[in-house]
Amino acid sequence: VLIREAYKILNKNLALMTDFYELTMMQGFFARGVHNKLAVFDLYYRKNPFGNGYVIFAGLEQVINYVLNIKFSEQDIKFLRAQNIFQEEFLSYLKEFEFTGDIFSVREGSVVFPGEPLVTVRAPIIQAQLIESCMLNIINYESLIATKSARIKQVISQDIILEFGLRRAPSPEAALLGTRASFIGGCDATSNTLAGKIFDIPVAGTHAHSWIMSFDNELDAFREYAKYFRDNLILLVDTYNTLKSGVPNAIKVFKELNAQNKMPKKFGIRLDSGDFAYLTKQIRFMFNQENLHDAIIIVSNSLDENIIAALKQQDAQINSWGIGTKLLTGDGATALDGVYKLVALENKNKILEPKIKISDNPEKISTPCFKQTFRIYDKKNKKIKADLIGLHEEDFIINQDLNIYNPVISWKKIFLEKNYYFTRKMLEAVIINGERKISKINLNEIKKYCMLELKSLWPEYKRIINPEVMPVCLSKKLAIIKNNLLKINTANNY
Amino acid sequence: VLIREAYKILNKNLALMTDFYELTMMQGFFARGVHNKLAVFDLYYRKNPFGNGYVIFAGLEQVINYVLNIKFSEQDIKFLRAQNIFQEEFLSYLKEFEFTGDIFSVREGSVVFPGEPLVTVRAPIIQAQLIESCMLNIINYESLIATKSARIKQVISQDIILEFGLRRAPSPEAALLGTRASFIGGCDATSNTLAGKIFDIPVAGTHAHSWIMSFDNELDAFREYAKYFRDNLILLVDTYNTLKSGVPNAIKVFKELNAQNKMPKKFGIRLDSGDFAYLTKQIRFMFNQENLHDAIIIVSNSLDENIIAALKQQDAQINSWGIGTKLLTGDGATALDGVYKLVALENKNKILEPKIKISDNPEKISTPCFKQTFRIYDKKNKKIKADLIGLHEEDFIINQDLNIYNPVISWKKIFLEKNYYFTRKMLEAVIINGERKISKINLNEIKKYCMLELKSLWPEYKRIINPEVMPVCLSKKLAIIKNNLLKINTANNY
Repeated sequence: VLIREAYKILNKNLALMTDFYELTMMQGFFARGVHNKLAVFDLYYRKNPFGNGYVIFAGLEQVINYVLNIKFSEQDIKFLRAQNIFQEEFLSYLKEFEFTGDIFSVREGSVVFPGEPLVTVRAPIIQAQLIESCMLNIINYESLIATKSARIKQVISQDIILEFGLRRAPSPEAALLGTRASFIGGCDATSNTLAGKIFDIPVAGTHAHSWIMSFDNELDAFREYAKYFRDNLILLVDTYNTLKSGVPNAIKVFKELNAQNKMPKKFGIRLDSGDFAYLTKQIRFMFNQENLHDAIIIVSNSLDENIIAALKQQDAQINSWGIGTKLLTGDGATALDGVYKLVALENKNKILEPKIKISDNPEKISTPCFKQTFRIYDKKNKKIKADLIGLHEEDFIINQDLNIYNPVISWKKIFLEKNYYFTRKMLEAVIINGERKISKINLNEIKKYCMLELKSLWPEYKRIINPEVMPVCLSKKLAIIKNNLLKINTANNY
Repeated sequence: VLIREAYKILNKNLALMTDFYELTMMQGFFARGVHNKLAVFDLYYRKNPFGNGYVIFAGLEQVINYVLNIKFSEQDIKFLRAQNIFQEEFLSYLKEFEFTGDIFSVREGSVVFPGEPLVTVRAPIIQAQLIESCMLNIINYESLIATKSARIKQVISQDIILEFGLRRAPSPEAALLGTRASFIGGCDATSNTLAGKIFDIPVAGTHAHSWIMSFDNELDAFREYAKYFRDNLILLVDTYNTLKSGVPNAIKVFKELNAQNKMPKKFGIRLDSGDFAYLTKQIRFMFNQENLHDAIIIVSNSLDENIIAALKQQDAQINSWGIGTKLLTGDGATALDGVYKLVALENKNKILEPKIKISDNPEKISTPCFKQTFRIYDKKNKKIKADLIGLHEEDFIINQDLNIYNPVISWKKIFLEKNYYFTRKMLEAVIINGERKISKINLNEIKKYCMLELKSLWPEYKRIINPEVMPVCLSKKLAIIKNNLLKINTANNY
């Protein structure tokens, strides 16, 4: 039932959620009769956001639902017809449109790096073109937020992270998808009740200043609240004056409950303003003096990984961190810069020909061919050594000495001795011939997998400032194809 | 039909799209039997984003739809029951929940300033509490994007602005609501086909690099494209080499069409990379040499108001600007910092008592009472002189000499002579007793109104850097109530 409910909210038919130029190009392909040529597109990003050392890939489940639910309604067709540039034959084709191609993808929660394919679409070019914009939208946003969440988790370590971002998230759906992504990256619970319901994430929250203000005084407000919430009693102490009113009143209520043998299993305070380093140390001291050693201190107020790191360094006495605005807006990065590029196209002889996009900027040149990413681990400690992008049909699972090549600077290479590494394929088939091939993965499983993925990185790659750069290399075969194509294309067109 | 379609996508039942603490507080109010006490909450923001001088208010239509569609489903109730903290009586109450209160709001597209109520909710406290989180979400995001768009419009002036942000917008719904908001603030068209359909915004777009790459050479790609799009032929020229390949090939195609008497009404090129100041001047020169004076030059690549201002200053030859990522992500601001505070609550005698939220930070102290904002204009030039927040029942429409007071610094005031100003009420009733009171306004009308609103500001308030600060003052009656309440509350609680 939960899944069906989620379907209604997220699996809308988004056939027209596409940049208009996708549709004009589709009509062009259709009119030329080349629309069923098999094409391969890669979705990848160029630069780690936040100055981070990696990205957490997220959004695949929503992409699958989007792609498999595309259906142009009568109203959609009518709207397109009214634009006066589409031919009736093409509109008739759209009426029957469904995605019949293949999608290969990295697993959600994976640690990924710039330049490697995260999603590869192999489909008739007319189909592959349509899904570009919306697929990028979903993956760019969810991966950005999962990555932000992992950075915060990196700094917070074992404390509890509560996601409180609903009111400042960029749209209601962002509050759902962002909450989902932040859970994958390391958050423990959310204030967003609907996200809790749809994605089976624990929900959390107690009361706001308005609760206190609806009473004549703070102590009455606390006492009344304690009547209704006995298992988990968190009191907000900064409505009037934290140290002179809020905390003393909270202590009074906790001691009253204790005297009546009604002490809640979990109790404490939340602080939403003020200097957290100073206040939390004072509050912890006040609690300890009253033998309330188990009291929990929760803080929330424009927190992010940098502020948290500073508070930790100052030994602030905090158990749980409510992170809202700066998490669900991906503060510190404008967006993940994911792009979607044609890397191969069927020729007249029905053979996939590699394609390349040239640019004056070497980092912007795409890597051609239908590919696979092989993650290379150190056999001894199971940490990632490098990622190797090869042809899809290549195989590096077998033990062999290996040279891997820098994708931009062709003379740079890394040598791997056969007994000291093992590899894993990153891209797996998720849709084949328009049919879903992987089962839906529970969000808790995705999160667990993500935590394991993060363990496979040395701490140097996880620093929130100036992390080490993971080598992402090309196989010898792929490097040769790319360099040849570069030579041909620059000779032809410059 | 368009409206019904929009309904399906945006007017979802978002009953649970609320912070969990709203629900725990609601249960608290319910258990105490005070849930039907009439409360007044103000939604306002504290600080202009982007260092701007104002905000464009947007999102009201979505708020109305959200509020009037709240209905807890059986599944919602089941989910809440499973949390093990809600009483059955309260859950039964939720089953019958509907919003029966009043909402007063500023018109969409209005120029607004920090500290003044944008939306005022007067409803039983249990109802007013529920809608806090989602209402803030919608208004914070749409108003942020409308404001960003207005800043861009301010710099671009009469050129065309195309919104291209779908692929980097934070979630599919953000791409819809953000496009809507950016149209209000000044954009002329969008690449987002679905947003075009739902909100009746002109759609725009031609082709991508993948179109060019699907051909053996660029010239063939241009010629084929010209076959299908005869009215509006924009060719993307930077796939291989802009000045040596793209522009010469485009010129060749335009001249061929001209020779065949098939010149499109609108034609030109789009540039997605490189140095726009240099390249567009070169391209304009090349076009002029071939007598293609009407050719349009469109650019797109991580543009924002600052980059555009710099390009304008360098006399870049650009007719249309495609703005994507930095517009729909509200780049340069984390979020609009909208908040929702209790400002009045019914007492035992059924009289609305003013409420105040104290803070060590004077700017964070809320302004009590059920209020109205009076916009004060200079009679001669119709420009805004100041905003005056008064009690809802006050009236400053009549001509009288007037003193208005700074809301934070109580000795600061402005004197207005009766013959030199006129006023307008900003808040209007949009929902009364749970029923919609204003008709749906066409988005083009909202945009037109917004452009008039911007005209009522002196240019000094519209500078994108260091704008003049608009005075937002309190009426004498309101200032007295606020100061008295401050004294009482600080005496009681400190």
